[in-house]
Amino acid sequence: MRKLLIANRGEIAVRIARAARELGIATVAIYSDADERAEHVRVADEAVLVGPAPAPASYLNVDAVIGAIRSSGADAVHPGYGFLSENADFAQAVIDAGATWVGPAPQAIREMGDKVAARKTAAAAGVRTVPGSAGEISGVAEAVEVAAEIGYPLAIKAAAGGGGRGIRIVDSAEDLAAAISTAQAEARTAFGSAAVYVERFVPRARHIEVQVFGDGERAVHLGLRDCSMQRRRQKVVEEAGDLGLPAHIVDEISSAAVRLTSSVRYRGAGTVEFLYDEERVDYYFIEMNTRIQVEHPVTEMVYQRDLVAEQLQVAAGEPMSLLQGSLVPNGHAIEIRLNAENPEMNFFPSPGTISRCDMPGGPFVRIDSGVKTGSVVSPYYDSMLGKIIVWGADRPTALARMLRALTELQIEGIVTTAGFVESILRTDEFAARDFHTTWLEAWMTEQAALKAGAA
Amino acid sequence: MRKLLIANRGEIAVRIARAARELGIATVAIYSDADERAEHVRVADEAVLVGPAPAPASYLNVDAVIGAIRSSGADAVHPGYGFLSENADFAQAVIDAGATWVGPAPQAIREMGDKVAARKTAAAAGVRTVPGSAGEISGVAEAVEVAAEIGYPLAIKAAAGGGGRGIRIVDSAEDLAAAISTAQAEARTAFGSAAVYVERFVPRARHIEVQVFGDGERAVHLGLRDCSMQRRRQKVVEEAGDLGLPAHIVDEISSAAVRLTSSVRYRGAGTVEFLYDEERVDYYFIEMNTRIQVEHPVTEMVYQRDLVAEQLQVAAGEPMSLLQGSLVPNGHAIEIRLNAENPEMNFFPSPGTISRCDMPGGPFVRIDSGVKTGSVVSPYYDSMLGKIIVWGADRPTALARMLRALTELQIEGIVTTAGFVESILRTDEFAARDFHTTWLEAWMTEQAALKAGAA
Repeated sequence: MRKLLIANRGEIAVRIARAARELGIATVAIYSDADERAEHVRVADEAVLVGPAPAPASYLNVDAVIGAIRSSGADAVHPGYGFLSENADFAQAVIDAGATWVGPAPQAIREMGDKVAARKTAAAAGVRTVPGSAGEISGVAEAVEVAAEIGYPLAIKAAAGGGGRGIRIVDSAEDLAAAISTAQAEARTAFGSAAVYVERFVPRARHIEVQVFGDGERAVHLGLRDCSMQRRRQKVVEEAGDLGLPAHIVDEISSAAVRLTSSVRYRGAGTVEFLYDEERVDYYFIEMNTRIQVEHPVTEMVYQRDLVAEQLQVAAGEPMSLLQGSLVPNGHAIEIRLNAENPEMNFFPSPGTISRCDMPGGPFVRIDSGVKTGSVVSPYYDSMLGKIIVWGADRPTALARMLRALTELQIEGIVTTAGFVESILRTDEFAARDFHTTWLEAWMTEQAALKAGAA
Repeated sequence: MRKLLIANRGEIAVRIARAARELGIATVAIYSDADERAEHVRVADEAVLVGPAPAPASYLNVDAVIGAIRSSGADAVHPGYGFLSENADFAQAVIDAGATWVGPAPQAIREMGDKVAARKTAAAAGVRTVPGSAGEISGVAEAVEVAAEIGYPLAIKAAAGGGGRGIRIVDSAEDLAAAISTAQAEARTAFGSAAVYVERFVPRARHIEVQVFGDGERAVHLGLRDCSMQRRRQKVVEEAGDLGLPAHIVDEISSAAVRLTSSVRYRGAGTVEFLYDEERVDYYFIEMNTRIQVEHPVTEMVYQRDLVAEQLQVAAGEPMSLLQGSLVPNGHAIEIRLNAENPEMNFFPSPGTISRCDMPGGPFVRIDSGVKTGSVVSPYYDSMLGKIIVWGADRPTALARMLRALTELQIEGIVTTAGFVESILRTDEFAARDFHTTWLEAWMTEQAALKAGAA
């Protein structure tokens, strides 16, 4: 691998360029009209314009990106996350253009990209998904049968629904028959189909994911991450280290993730996501992301590994350096995402020019950023500016360090979510790790009510 | 410990304030007229003016600093390095003022501050100093006797000399008598005393030091650092990790340092410095620094410990958390110092306003800095702006990472030594670790000659 095209922008493009430079690999940035002066362009050795600002015309434009590979003479492509990173056709086009694809084979991306297929693959590897009916139920009788198996509370979901719509929670057997009838009627009205299915309901769910890595022959895991602090399904704070889970659960989830990864002869970095049921002390496979993840640095800090360098080396045909026996976690890491959004205005994007960008420093603080003083934040893309990641010998130390780091952060010229994130970190619930995937939005509603009451 | 006065400025004052904040300890900065807007003042909770710009009138003014302790109500004092950090009288004055001194007892500072006393203490602890005559030699006959014991090459040094002046190197026995006579005559002329002593000469010396820590009862070490890359006895690059020394030497030096530290019932962080003789594969105690050292971060990265936090906790009477058995080094760390000096003008200080200060980021890069965009570098103090520290799984990885980090560094408005340091790191000698304490100056002379020849 001599020259790597980075098919992305922002902090992850900068992150990839850093790894490439350390390995002596030249880099090619791609950019849209709007990103001509962006940091990811500046840090690359060369750059190719791929189109106008809107992503479909540039960063998502397969033909333009393939054209940039050819014109730059790049012999490898790293897709980062988002954009084309999980587009199997793009991966295939890169390979067809004669370049190395830094990621799993297109077939593995397809297999895991299709949710139904992924669940089948998981089942075949002995990795459980959320218990429930095998698809649409025929009627109340079948629901009673399924319920007897999975227990209460359970959820009746419209097969044609999605995104949380058309869900009805049932707490006990006596309510089941009536709930099914109502749900079917509602589903017919809302979605034009009465088809419903039954699934275990998890009131206190945590988002737990496993960092995996494979070389096509063998697979390893680099522990778990907790990403339960979410707003509108967007992760806000992520952690690695001691997640306060029972030891046997940590072992089981890790093994399940490795089993699944091995079963598809996976090559490169991936993340296997689980829903963890705190009350039942159980876990269910949700999906696998076939790319590097935003929150990979917390794993890197706890395992002292460079996952992006490992991606490049494995893609270049070198043996994977990760051996399960020598992957020993140490301490705790926390990451927060910094977004150019205004929390006072319903998180409306806050584009503009950053007139001052002073990032925190000092021991065990890592900055992965795509901006600096003078950077222009354009309205066209994801609002994430970068991430602050800290490590500590334990979770309280890491938390104290992150709060210290946030006092040093100074970003002027645009509005960011730094203060919002800090207020989350200062809650008793965060300190006690007493939160789950729906906690943040409930807390925000509560805070808004308190504020309204005070006003 | 509730409120800590930081009796220092610049990056180390910022470093100490960070540790205090993470531990929930309030901080008091002291500052001179010239430092009113300095970063170390901004990051502290409060600040006390201690006098005009020249250090003797402010940062070295014991009465003014003791006054600041009283007026601020600080209950502890961290001296950093330099300034009053190794002033036993100041340490005593802090204690007399009723505050906790974050450092060893005044007695230990005195014992190690006096070089002659320190060598005696070392000898008593079975730690060797450079072999040679026990003080002034009576004449040639004694020199022959000593030479027979210590071997050649040896150095004849004027007892009244210092700083490398009045030294004569002797390579073999036949030259000894004549050299003694000449040295005595020269010494009489130069220093008014003919007294000379004989010492082993180390042509290829490395500066190797051991990070030690004690709680008054027991002492531990946190491995070795190599600080052989020096210009005018100022360290330029420092390393921790695998220093390429024989394993038995690493063990012996570490044990010797711990023995010495234990023998004075040392409390807090300290550094025991050795001269390592590469040709004879031997080592000699030079001195002990009874304070935190500029280069402590390389040790922190390799051992994943926070030494300043440990200093504060031990000073506050908490048990030392460092257990020798659980101090396991991992990987390699390199630190470079960034000075506001102009290498093209014989390293003349380059004060001024920093109009842009973009520090590197990304994985395993740490920034310990006392400046940022807009900071004014005054001509009154040490020219060090801060340090860049990187960690890697091994030395080549750490070196590649440092070189990558340096490509990201952008400091405008003043001249710095960044480019000079980068050129050192890019030499074959640095990569091969083929350098010793006098290498850098010889290389600089060579480079200057090459440049003059080319012109």
